[in-house]
Amino acid sequence: MTLKEKIGQLNQKMFGWNAYKKTQHGYEVSEDFKKEVRFGDGLGALYGLFRADPWSKVNFENGIPIDSNAKVSNMLQKYVIENTRLGIPIFISEECPHGHQALDGTMFPTNIGIGATWNPKLYEKVFSQVAAEIRSRGGNLALVSTLDILQDPRWGRSEECYGEDPFLASRFSEAAVKGLQGKDGDELKGDSKVVAVVKHLCAQGASIGGHNGKGAPIGEREVREIHLPAMRTAVKAGALGCMAAYNEIDGIFCHANEKLLTKILRQEWGFSGIVMSDGCAVDNLVKIARSYEGAAAIALKAGVDLNLWNTAFTKLEEAVAEGMLEEKFIDRAVRRVLRLKFILGLFDNPYIDEAKASHVVNSKASRELNLQIARESIVLLKNKEGILPLRKDLKKVAVIGPNADILYNQLGDYTAPQKEGTGSTVLQGINQLIGRETTVTYTRGCRIRDTSRDGFKEAIENAKDSDAVVLVLGGSSSRNFDTRFDSNGAAILSDSVTEMDCGEGVDVADLELGGVQLELAKEIMLTGKPVIVVLIQGRPYAIPWIAENCDAVMCAWYPGKEGGRAVADVIFGDINPSGKLSVSMPKSTAQLPVYYNYKDTSDYLDITAKPLYSFGFGLSYTTFDISNLKVVNKLISLQQLRDNVKIYVSVDVKNSGNISGSEVVQLYIQDLESSINRRVKELKGFKKVWLEPGESKTVILELGQEELSIWNTEMNFVIEPGNVKIMIGNSSETVLEDIIKITI
Amino acid sequence: MTLKEKIGQLNQKMFGWNAYKKTQHGYEVSEDFKKEVRFGDGLGALYGLFRADPWSKVNFENGIPIDSNAKVSNMLQKYVIENTRLGIPIFISEECPHGHQALDGTMFPTNIGIGATWNPKLYEKVFSQVAAEIRSRGGNLALVSTLDILQDPRWGRSEECYGEDPFLASRFSEAAVKGLQGKDGDELKGDSKVVAVVKHLCAQGASIGGHNGKGAPIGEREVREIHLPAMRTAVKAGALGCMAAYNEIDGIFCHANEKLLTKILRQEWGFSGIVMSDGCAVDNLVKIARSYEGAAAIALKAGVDLNLWNTAFTKLEEAVAEGMLEEKFIDRAVRRVLRLKFILGLFDNPYIDEAKASHVVNSKASRELNLQIARESIVLLKNKEGILPLRKDLKKVAVIGPNADILYNQLGDYTAPQKEGTGSTVLQGINQLIGRETTVTYTRGCRIRDTSRDGFKEAIENAKDSDAVVLVLGGSSSRNFDTRFDSNGAAILSDSVTEMDCGEGVDVADLELGGVQLELAKEIMLTGKPVIVVLIQGRPYAIPWIAENCDAVMCAWYPGKEGGRAVADVIFGDINPSGKLSVSMPKSTAQLPVYYNYKDTSDYLDITAKPLYSFGFGLSYTTFDISNLKVVNKLISLQQLRDNVKIYVSVDVKNSGNISGSEVVQLYIQDLESSINRRVKELKGFKKVWLEPGESKTVILELGQEELSIWNTEMNFVIEPGNVKIMIGNSSETVLEDIIKITI
Repeated sequence: MTLKEKIGQLNQKMFGWNAYKKTQHGYEVSEDFKKEVRFGDGLGALYGLFRADPWSKVNFENGIPIDSNAKVSNMLQKYVIENTRLGIPIFISEECPHGHQALDGTMFPTNIGIGATWNPKLYEKVFSQVAAEIRSRGGNLALVSTLDILQDPRWGRSEECYGEDPFLASRFSEAAVKGLQGKDGDELKGDSKVVAVVKHLCAQGASIGGHNGKGAPIGEREVREIHLPAMRTAVKAGALGCMAAYNEIDGIFCHANEKLLTKILRQEWGFSGIVMSDGCAVDNLVKIARSYEGAAAIALKAGVDLNLWNTAFTKLEEAVAEGMLEEKFIDRAVRRVLRLKFILGLFDNPYIDEAKASHVVNSKASRELNLQIARESIVLLKNKEGILPLRKDLKKVAVIGPNADILYNQLGDYTAPQKEGTGSTVLQGINQLIGRETTVTYTRGCRIRDTSRDGFKEAIENAKDSDAVVLVLGGSSSRNFDTRFDSNGAAILSDSVTEMDCGEGVDVADLELGGVQLELAKEIMLTGKPVIVVLIQGRPYAIPWIAENCDAVMCAWYPGKEGGRAVADVIFGDINPSGKLSVSMPKSTAQLPVYYNYKDTSDYLDITAKPLYSFGFGLSYTTFDISNLKVVNKLISLQQLRDNVKIYVSVDVKNSGNISGSEVVQLYIQDLESSINRRVKELKGFKKVWLEPGESKTVILELGQEELSIWNTEMNFVIEPGNVKIMIGNSSETVLEDIIKITI
Repeated sequence: MTLKEKIGQLNQKMFGWNAYKKTQHGYEVSEDFKKEVRFGDGLGALYGLFRADPWSKVNFENGIPIDSNAKVSNMLQKYVIENTRLGIPIFISEECPHGHQALDGTMFPTNIGIGATWNPKLYEKVFSQVAAEIRSRGGNLALVSTLDILQDPRWGRSEECYGEDPFLASRFSEAAVKGLQGKDGDELKGDSKVVAVVKHLCAQGASIGGHNGKGAPIGEREVREIHLPAMRTAVKAGALGCMAAYNEIDGIFCHANEKLLTKILRQEWGFSGIVMSDGCAVDNLVKIARSYEGAAAIALKAGVDLNLWNTAFTKLEEAVAEGMLEEKFIDRAVRRVLRLKFILGLFDNPYIDEAKASHVVNSKASRELNLQIARESIVLLKNKEGILPLRKDLKKVAVIGPNADILYNQLGDYTAPQKEGTGSTVLQGINQLIGRETTVTYTRGCRIRDTSRDGFKEAIENAKDSDAVVLVLGGSSSRNFDTRFDSNGAAILSDSVTEMDCGEGVDVADLELGGVQLELAKEIMLTGKPVIVVLIQGRPYAIPWIAENCDAVMCAWYPGKEGGRAVADVIFGDINPSGKLSVSMPKSTAQLPVYYNYKDTSDYLDITAKPLYSFGFGLSYTTFDISNLKVVNKLISLQQLRDNVKIYVSVDVKNSGNISGSEVVQLYIQDLESSINRRVKELKGFKKVWLEPGESKTVILELGQEELSIWNTEMNFVIEPGNVKIMIGNSSETVLEDIIKITI
């Protein structure tokens, strides 16, 4: 290969939606795309061919209808194959943080809700569906957020995190990879799997002040304990791609971090896939490199293989010519790219069955799966005197609030335009569910951030005239066409009030609910009617007043396209809620951070150190008893652990109520004798079990080398002898304890 | 020496106020002290012989009067010398974070106000006085907070920090050491200097959430750039003692951190003094060491030499016997302790002139010095339409507010009981200053934290009936006898409302002013009278409403015992204010952190990233123009810098107003071409200059190897070639810029 051809394989500069032109009779390859292909006599990857959203300005008017998706991707593959010397097919990479961000793509709950399901098996099915959707259209790389840890809910990308816990995030990261790539490499050659490009590596969630993608001044142990486990697990699950993170860690940009991208990722963990840059993140290295050429050289040497939008990667030839970069680093990256194209079977079969997408995308089964996972993501936080579930024979239900009937507000960021009449809002879900005898009246009351109280009067009247109020509050990551965007697609905040208060680039300082939502809640409470608060949100807002005063509170996060129905199912008892918080809900911003796995803390003078609701917490319509803690191999040696002998922790869980439902048994540990300062609790196992009324099951959880290792003073993962406390419960406020002893 | 004798020299377990007994005819050695001396047939150090405060319960009733101080210390030295085999004199260590915490000790402004003076030369005089006071009583080790960096003002010990900037803190750290120890070691043999035990090493200010002494999950670069410079400078200034910090850094407790206490401190920087533990902090290592013996072994091996209150250090004999600790580590620590006793001249002259203390302590000169530094510490933040200074011929001035007339509230934590009728509150200061023609009326209005509005009415009446209101708000670190204390003297928070909202162990979440202070301010503003707000506080509270609405705002921090007069001097124009913030004042807790030397930031949706008032900011009653920026050696080579060639940055400062005053010229840099991500601004030089009206002076500041070095990717301090931006102004919002170029 010539240097030019090699550099071509490392590039992914243009936006995919500019790669084609709609003509009267179909589609043709755009001049932009031809130019891009000419630049490197071939092309590594094309980003976002099917991406649709306000930023790309692709919508149902101008986008590619589902039955033409594969035609267009095939056309582009064909063009590259036939118009370059080597005829190497291209990667087509697509965004799918919670479903494929394309027209008709199934929009699942965002990660923060996924985390609350505590059901990675179900999530694996979700990403199996996402993979099938993307591949059926011609996409083959799937960009998915599985690595970010939510430590500061001010961050606008909180919704993209599975939560605050590295163990929980690891299970979902693993599930996403398996769902996307299948169980072994071979499935990738078929027509229903794609390469997972998990993001972001790493520690973006530690960015200071919750500011998006800024500095994370943390140390290596914090990185190892909190921010790397999800990636390590993804590698073990076979992940073949990852994306470097925007932020820096203790002064070193992730895109310039050879230790991270090469030493740890490849040499220590054996990762063999590609590292993609984040959008324009290599150009950002000009800050330290003085030039695009220098920036590209630093990134490539550190271990970034494939460009995303950066100008820097188009200057690699100059970088080599100017002696900034040895060609061997380019060869290394090219080998990785080509190897992955082989693994994907692109050389043998670059084209896609053009009829398939219409059957795969947005199928009935996918919508049912979506509804199912939405149901499991809902966390019931308060249920005063068992007011929930509501009876279906109520005369009148008032549905009120800014998030009660706006579909986009429940979909999160990275969402494509939706077809009119599809999906369900909470209002629609309730209407679908309950009979004609019940009148459902809707008033918005107020908006998410707007401070007008004009709608209060009508909403109060509505509430007064009802038997129960469903008050749907929260936040929104819904973009509109007025939003201006940064070069990487992050929203640029403008002075004009937008209703969007979450999502990439939309960090907030104050975690109070936006606008006059809290005031609306107070007014509605004054009516004396039972008030069920439903929170639709991408981050945990601080709701101490609501928690104290309202009759019931449930958090549905951004529940996805079928989320309204899922909420209705829970409200009226068709579904018994089983979600558990994957993030601690703070009482206020002033209290941050409040994550459960701290090392030591103390109360403030004016507020306790405890969150409003703890990690792992969530109510059910039934009650569960956890008892009979038993531990097998309670005394275990280092050697046994190294030989993969496990400690088995078992408890009996009994449904002691009258309704069937699921409980999540959670296992935490605290290393009591460690050479370094340990956290007070660390999640190390969990299992979600379904129980009929009166039924009892024994749940067995395992602890082994992996779970018991710590990152020691010599900067190695080791197991140390000594006592370890194990704690079991149905939240991080555990109820049973025992001690295991690891001997030399 | 026997092992027992060696271990004796490493101990400092008991409280000094238990070492003596008052008898009818004088003082005698207590049984506790004798027991302590018997334990190690000698004693390393006695802590806090003269400490007086609610915790020690030492006060003017039961404490040692000034003329008997040296008698008691001599008596104890004599006892040890005559009743041990080797007759080694003891260290007598005393607290002096802002003056000697003893009866009659001069109580200077706390560090956060000291930082605002930007006048290390004056501060050196302060600590020269402190040293003389301590030594004249018989003390010889001075425990002083010079190392903590204020990054999160929720922290109760914010007042003990010189501010948020490592360069500024380093200058004061250096000044404290020089003031205490003198210019060379010889002065320590005299009768007016003491060994500085600077604290805390290190990164206590990075403790998560502002929680006192908890985990700081930061990386080595952050430690090197922010938290170590003050210690490095102290070592260069000759500091012979330091205290390890309570907190851990990225999992490693400072007391167990060999890299910190031995490798960096001694091997890298050449520190030859002693490392003292913090109170009970070694016992805290039982958490990782399983036993007191193990904890002591870890600490001693890491580099802790001298005990403070820990049980662990009394188990060193057992630690050696059980093979946990080689005796060579004990020998190493003993050598350091004995060497320091030689340096202090204790072997030659263990006794103190018993007549001296009465002349030295609380002298007229010390009170004048105290007044002077208090004046310089006051920062004028707002002066709408030049309302200040107030005319002295006003008919009536209303002095209102919870901090207007309580002396203890302006003294900070670590304060001894004060004699009735000494010092000056703001009310007293104003009364002293202005003539009899002016009526000064005082009403408290409300308390610091109490929520009673009972005093509002009277305060409002008082305001209405005045020509101007001086409204004195803020916080308090004043302890009372109801406060319960932890084993290390930190306050334990109880449910009963105390007025103390700052100080060790008193962290707050919300930075709003406590109680109903803001409401009182709003009510007073409604009277339409000119309102001058004076803030007496140990941390920057968030005061956006006051900043926007009140006519004038000045921050006096905890201004010390003469602080009331200093405030009055500024209000009525006898003193032109010259203080500059050493810490950014946030708009709210939600915005934290807001320090000026960030690397990259972005606005929140609901609030900017900018603080309410910036680091380095402070108004004067005159105006200053800074112009004519010139740079000598603008182009400089690495070799020249290594050869100690300097870059000289000069500007002209002109007093363009009608009043004489001081301006602080501040020099910041930004490394534009660095291998690692740099901060947007870093203070690297400043000078405070006095100018008569119309006068102009040329200020020259230097940049050299030290200022231009960065901590690079290979974890070394190096200068790198490339451009560096220099910025000059009278705050961190600089006005002049230029670029220097460092060549290879």
